[in-house]
Amino acid sequence: MAEARQVQGELVLLVLSGDMEKGLAACNLALAALAAERPVTLFFSFWGLNFLKRKECKHCVGAPLLSRLLGWINRDHAASQRLGRFHLGGAGRWALLRLMRRHRIPPFRESLEMAHRMGARVIACSTTLGLMGLSRDDLISEVDEVAGAMAFLDRARGGQAICIS
Amino acid sequence: MAEARQVQGELVLLVLSGDMEKGLAACNLALAALAAERPVTLFFSFWGLNFLKRKECKHCVGAPLLSRLLGWINRDHAASQRLGRFHLGGAGRWALLRLMRRHRIPPFRESLEMAHRMGARVIACSTTLGLMGLSRDDLISEVDEVAGAMAFLDRARGGQAICIS
Amino acid sequence: MAEARQVQGELVLLVLSGDMEKGLAACNLALAALAAERPVTLFFSFWGLNFLKRKECKHCVGAPLLSRLLGWINRDHAASQRLGRFHLGGAGRWALLRLMRRHRIPPFRESLEMAHRMGARVIACSTTLGLMGLSRDDLISEVDEVAGAMAFLDRARGGQAICIS
Repeated sequence: MAEARQVQGELVLLVLSGDMEKGLAACNLALAALAAERPVTLFFSFWGLNFLKRKECKHCVGAPLLSRLLGWINRDHAASQRLGRFHLGGAGRWALLRLMRRHRIPPFRESLEMAHRMGARVIACSTTLGLMGLSRDDLISEVDEVAGAMAFLDRARGGQAICIS
Repeated sequence: MAEARQVQGELVLLVLSGDMEKGLAACNLALAALAAERPVTLFFSFWGLNFLKRKECKHCVGAPLLSRLLGWINRDHAASQRLGRFHLGGAGRWALLRLMRRHRIPPFRESLEMAHRMGARVIACSTTLGLMGLSRDDLISEVDEVAGAMAFLDRARGGQAICIS
Repeated sequence: MAEARQVQGELVLLVLSGDMEKGLAACNLALAALAAERPVTLFFSFWGLNFLKRKECKHCVGAPLLSRLLGWINRDHAASQRLGRFHLGGAGRWALLRLMRRHRIPPFRESLEMAHRMGARVIACSTTLGLMGLSRDDLISEVDEVAGAMAFLDRARGGQAICIS
């Protein structure tokens, strides 16, 4: 019995990195698990929160100066992220996105949308949200919940937790 | 029965990275698990060992030249680490630490102390220690044990292992 | 019963990073698990695929221009990889490899060979392979299988999955 439950266990992905390739890997794993009819939760924390930020993210207005400064430096959002390796001022990203299109691999935002439509639960880390001076309105519509580390651990229990950092 | 054990399973965190944000994430997870009365082990390896180095770490004295050189380049320690992203020569770290203080999020060392007081077991990787020319005396007092990969795997068995790299 | 199975569960390592230290950590964990007679699978994806590329990797010939460009920039292979931290134009790697030799820690390729001989299964991510314009012939002989994310998840079920990113 216990084994059977484990086989059908939830895949709980913790995304700590904001690098484009890490987000793509998370979506890729999520989509494969969903295709195998496993429940999936994606929890985005720290730089990973960038993946959930709207382009028109307002954390540059009204927030304390430091949050605004951090927001200005940390400009990535759901539709565009830096590569962790070979970003090359954007040239690496451009090349990779072209290659992906040729191989019909959708970019991050589209993959996340697809995973969300297929039932993946998307959670934004509340601590990071506060730290960056953001509110729920600054996040894309796919976000189902804003919650803390405890929520991640609760979901990870009994399931399979993988951290993509 | 088996499921009940899993629910109460140990959280075993493997920290391979020396980036400040990764250490904070590890402590954050550890504290949340401890608050939920789960046992926690933190295993620090490779650059992650920096998190356990004393400020007055003596790996620059007496060790072979290469270890000393590595130690000089790799100056981070328990009280101060580089950010993996937006370090900006220290300005990014300064801004993040200020933001954290404003949100009452303690820096790494204080979080680790708290986790340790709450019962988290802190292990330093013996292989890395040897490689860097360090001894137990170069590590902070929170370190409970110096052990190898086998110890990590043993603890991870039956529990939940998460690698923060 | 269920617990006994978990104790003997497979260790399934997902390597997303191409940084030398991450590959070494993966091999180290794999070898420790193999020594404890646990089955091990190493799944290399994204930049991690570099660890499986032959030195004479031909993705610079015949492939579309973008793949060739990516291949030229992304020159690392099974016998030589950049460090993620303190690479210092190769000096950091040189120093670390020397230190490792002194401590009788073999470099990545030798560790992988050893793990493979001891029974570890080495899988290359098919999606990444296609994206980089590579074929099976461009990979080292230790690769047992070319497969997708689904294969990783299947193996991770019931076992212990750790992502080294």
